[in-house]
Amino acid sequence: MSISPDSLGVALMRRLDRLALHTAVPGEMTRLYLTPEHKAAAEEVAGWMQAAGMTTRMDAACTVVGRYEGRTSDAPLLLLGSHIDTVRNGGKYDGTFGVAAAIQAVDELNRAGERLPFAIEVLAFGDEEGVRFPMTLTGSKAVAGIFDPKALDCSDGNGVSLRRALVDFGGDPDDIARLTRDPAGVLGYVELHIEQGPVLEGEDLPVGIVTAINGATRATIGVKGWAGHAGTVPMGMRRDALTAAAEMILGIERRCAGQRNLVGTVGQVDVLPGAVNVIPGEVRFTIDVRSPRDDERKAAVADIFELTDGIAARRALGVTHTVTYDVPAATCGNELADGLEAAVIRSGIRPRRLPSGAGHDGLAMVNLCPIAMLFVRCRAGVSHSPAESITAHDADVAVRVLIDFLRHFRA
Amino acid sequence: MSISPDSLGVALMRRLDRLALHTAVPGEMTRLYLTPEHKAAAEEVAGWMQAAGMTTRMDAACTVVGRYEGRTSDAPLLLLGSHIDTVRNGGKYDGTFGVAAAIQAVDELNRAGERLPFAIEVLAFGDEEGVRFPMTLTGSKAVAGIFDPKALDCSDGNGVSLRRALVDFGGDPDDIARLTRDPAGVLGYVELHIEQGPVLEGEDLPVGIVTAINGATRATIGVKGWAGHAGTVPMGMRRDALTAAAEMILGIERRCAGQRNLVGTVGQVDVLPGAVNVIPGEVRFTIDVRSPRDDERKAAVADIFELTDGIAARRALGVTHTVTYDVPAATCGNELADGLEAAVIRSGIRPRRLPSGAGHDGLAMVNLCPIAMLFVRCRAGVSHSPAESITAHDADVAVRVLIDFLRHFRA
Repeated sequence: MSISPDSLGVALMRRLDRLALHTAVPGEMTRLYLTPEHKAAAEEVAGWMQAAGMTTRMDAACTVVGRYEGRTSDAPLLLLGSHIDTVRNGGKYDGTFGVAAAIQAVDELNRAGERLPFAIEVLAFGDEEGVRFPMTLTGSKAVAGIFDPKALDCSDGNGVSLRRALVDFGGDPDDIARLTRDPAGVLGYVELHIEQGPVLEGEDLPVGIVTAINGATRATIGVKGWAGHAGTVPMGMRRDALTAAAEMILGIERRCAGQRNLVGTVGQVDVLPGAVNVIPGEVRFTIDVRSPRDDERKAAVADIFELTDGIAARRALGVTHTVTYDVPAATCGNELADGLEAAVIRSGIRPRRLPSGAGHDGLAMVNLCPIAMLFVRCRAGVSHSPAESITAHDADVAVRVLIDFLRHFRA
Repeated sequence: MSISPDSLGVALMRRLDRLALHTAVPGEMTRLYLTPEHKAAAEEVAGWMQAAGMTTRMDAACTVVGRYEGRTSDAPLLLLGSHIDTVRNGGKYDGTFGVAAAIQAVDELNRAGERLPFAIEVLAFGDEEGVRFPMTLTGSKAVAGIFDPKALDCSDGNGVSLRRALVDFGGDPDDIARLTRDPAGVLGYVELHIEQGPVLEGEDLPVGIVTAINGATRATIGVKGWAGHAGTVPMGMRRDALTAAAEMILGIERRCAGQRNLVGTVGQVDVLPGAVNVIPGEVRFTIDVRSPRDDERKAAVADIFELTDGIAARRALGVTHTVTYDVPAATCGNELADGLEAAVIRSGIRPRRLPSGAGHDGLAMVNLCPIAMLFVRCRAGVSHSPAESITAHDADVAVRVLIDFLRHFRA
């Protein structure tokens, strides 16, 4: 598809290319929270915000905040944004797309001299990926009032605490508690993000409207059998932990394939002792179960535990389950999602609603206000990889949908 | 079961306890080929041989050879033996039992002043486990004439070549080719060994007669799918390499469980990229298939490759098979096995024939002469572990069966 070189999509892609230069490792995209690369990206973003008619500041959690006033000084507030940190060796669209697109949209309003019946703040969070410290969503949790100050004592791999890193960057750990917004004045939080999945590409759609950020449960399942010599123990006398685990993994796949928006994944498997000529005595594997509906997710996890217990009992093996992570789904607000859908329809695109399988800052923001997300198609559904790719055409569609949404919201 | 403190079994257990003192790591049983521990064990064994009326020498491959002459100087030769190396942190019976039991038997003949119609040589091989160098059975391959001199250039983990280690130990790499025996004068090779499996214990039998050392095929199976985000890729759009591998592993178990003496094991599994929240894009696993019958083993491997191909095709994944190891079964000679069986029956024990799932020096020796093995029960079938355990009672039964066999063989 051809696109005019002075389109918003091309301008947006140019911003994303520039932001990608701020990386710890030249040639890769690695920008962790509170690093010099983060600082450089934050300064670049603040400059863009100012050029787009926003006043800017960095808050105590080192989120860059740009404010575009509404028609009146007492207008309510709509929050836009995403994050500017990346995973190690990630891509240049995850997170940054939502920040740059929001700025691009405000820039367009500002050029036209338009003021809306609400103020806009664009938030460029610094810690969505949770790669540097053993926790995540610092910036959005602070804004939403669910930041736990105990996290300040977490340390990165070099022993630097979050508290220390915040101070060194210019943040203020002791002021984070005061970042919490008053829900009364906040209309919602809207984030644009690459899909990170193949659904939109599969249906040839540039954008889609998110119904909910899936809740997720992660657990480790341990299967305990008897190790033994691969040559000397007859098949009928074995307590093979791996063949039992294989049966469980298949059962998990079957259980999760049965429901439309449910997904279940076994991603990590440790087989002990792990020698070609030894019957595995122990296997530990992880499950990751997600659904936009909490009841659906809980039922699936319960069924998985039941099926693993049943297989272990039939094979006379031991089994344990340890839940390591459990977050409820964040359902998108109807007014916001309907507004995005209307804008999608006005742009002549079939509105596709889909859940977000990945987590986002919205998981924290939903504690403050209604949230909504617009997904943009990404090639092959790939993210967290240098192969992350979107087109200028799709970027253009997405930012135009956002502008149109803003112009109609509460109008 | 009570046993007299001056029984052969108790004497044999005492030898095994003494041999266990020669270890690289105090408190563990670790004695690798051509190490100082090996030297100390070899010297101890040579001393026992001399005390049992044998002449001794160390051959060019550092096998300790003890010779007990027959009635005439031109009598044919029967070989007995096993190995005195261990795995790392192994047990004190695997290998050493066969060497010590053979010496105990000769000692008994010598005390009684008995000469047989054949000479006996007891061979204490130094490299059955193949732990130090990336090859194995050096001593028995040399005797059987199938030692490949290229192996002399293999190096251990510290970069020491087999050639260098042999010289340092007092062996002679260039003379190994001359160790090959003339088959004409050799009646056979008989080895006593712990079972390393649970069959005899399960049937409450102290000893069993081996039918064949199983042939074995090892292969690596690679399954290639698409990695993806565990949250964002719907179940129906996945190419999960792990769920496919799970189906294969179950299929392999089912295929091998269908035949009496066939065993098939998946012992090692690598899941890539191996993160809790990433759908596995690639899985590699090993198979180890063994049978006393080569046709049965080959048919099973062919079926396994076919079933993995079928599963991969149905799931639209790639699959590769790489055979990494393939040795035919070594069938035990009828005359020797029947002789052992007769001795077992004379000692009042039900004769149980069973295959050897583990490999032994007989795999090499069968290239020279008929082989036979007598297995002794070990607790829970455990070997290659500090938990390896046998009883003095069973040791006594085994050595008495061996002596009785020797007295009747070719008598």
